Amino acid sequence: MTYCLGILLPAGLVLAADSRSNAGIDDITSVCKLEIFAVPGERVIAILSAGNLATTQSVTTQLRETAGKDGARDPHAVGSLYEAARAVGDTLREVVARDGAFVRPFGDPTGSFIVGGQIAGEKPRLFQVYPAGNFIEASPRSNYLQIGETKYGKPILDRALRSDSPLDQAAKLALLSFDAAMRSDLSVAMPIDMLRYETDSFSAANLAVLREDDPYWSALRRAYGDGLATLVESLPPPPDWRA
Amino acid sequence: MTYCLGILLPAGLVLAADSRSNAGIDDITSVCKLEIFAVPGERVIAILSAGNLATTQSVTTQLRETAGKDGARDPHAVGSLYEAARAVGDTLREVVARDGAFVRPFGDPTGSFIVGGQIAGEKPRLFQVYPAGNFIEASPRSNYLQIGETKYGKPILDRALRSDSPLDQAAKLALLSFDAAMRSDLSVAMPIDMLRYETDSFSAANLAVLREDDPYWSALRRAYGDGLATLVESLPPPPDWRA
Repeated sequence: MTYCLGILLPAGLVLAADSRSNAGIDDITSVCKLEIFAVPGERVIAILSAGNLATTQSVTTQLRETAGKDGARDPHAVGSLYEAARAVGDTLREVVARDGAFVRPFGDPTGSFIVGGQIAGEKPRLFQVYPAGNFIEASPRSNYLQIGETKYGKPILDRALRSDSPLDQAAKLALLSFDAAMRSDLSVAMPIDMLRYETDSFSAANLAVLREDDPYWSALRRAYGDGLATLVESLPPPPDWRA
Repeated sequence: MTYCLGILLPAGLVLAADSRSNAGIDDITSVCKLEIFAVPGERVIAILSAGNLATTQSVTTQLRETAGKDGARDPHAVGSLYEAARAVGDTLREVVARDGAFVRPFGDPTGSFIVGGQIAGEKPRLFQVYPAGNFIEASPRSNYLQIGETKYGKPILDRALRSDSPLDQAAKLALLSFDAAMRSDLSVAMPIDMLRYETDSFSAANLAVLREDDPYWSALRRAYGDGLATLVESLPPPPDWRA
């Protein structure tokens, strides 16, 4: 299934994707679903993908190969994040138009995407591209977007993410959201690719590949698990409701 | 959609159901989805239901009306919780056989159930009846069962519920699980009907109807929200991953 998450904050963006691709539970593999298009000092655009892997890889490959040829779609050349999201949606529609009829007997040919980043002259922006190729933009009122296995990882974000959370706080919550998804869904798995993008940095350097044995990942999960147990213990017990 | 949860512990059972029934988001109503069949001092059987309301009400009504007539299905007379679960499954199959073809043009005619309780001579037991009428039983290794909108409420249980949690601790976690489901899904809503059943009590007296303005419910949510924010703040920040 995959899980990808994008968070939009005044301080920047947190963008993260798991690595599992599966064609049935007896055929799993590890792929990178976070693609970065960067022109240092001028733009950073990340594209995260979920759904049919052949379709989503076709989309990102075609976008990468437009470099220098089709300015209207080349992520290195588009004039705004909105245009980048439209380029993803338009390319998705073309891939599905070409492959859809052949693929449908075997499964869903569609995909969905999160497109986030910043181009000089704009603030950081974050979009979600639907399987239909249309898309929505995140805002401070609705400041995170998810694709794939979205439900297990949502409660922690709804409880603790604020519209002005610092970037590191949001990165912690993103990882705890992934941990929740991975505990309950085998189709979401390490490593996690995570970009912390700081507003106006135009740099994609703060990028991590978190593996199962990563010491920070282990420490975070242990501290959260222990802290949550202590918190629940400390909550007031329910009253006796016998009449 | 509905959300129902049953938890099996050495100390007893926690059984809880929300109250929302909806035929589209513009047609919602409040119903009780927790039915209790009790013979004080001898048995307590609770049946929680999700799915097509006409179907699930038919099932519980028929079971209630077998009282004194069909000992093989009467929850007041069955010899074990296993037989109670089978009675629910068999009755569900009959209702779907009768109504299914008429209902399918309008939507899914099926339902699912949680059946939990204790009959003298047995330990407390907990079952989940599938839409097909077959069923599974909970065990210490897999000690909670959910029906309806199950995903949002699962992470808190997976993190903090133990096979030997005290009953009050499990009741707190059950309510936090409902809170998570209600924050993200409009088809799950107050009031919550919740039974805390103590092993060998053969009493269904510790039963609450928790409404939106219940002071314990408000205090629990506030304390958990505040505690979680403090906990996340206290977790170690992610390292800088720039090379």
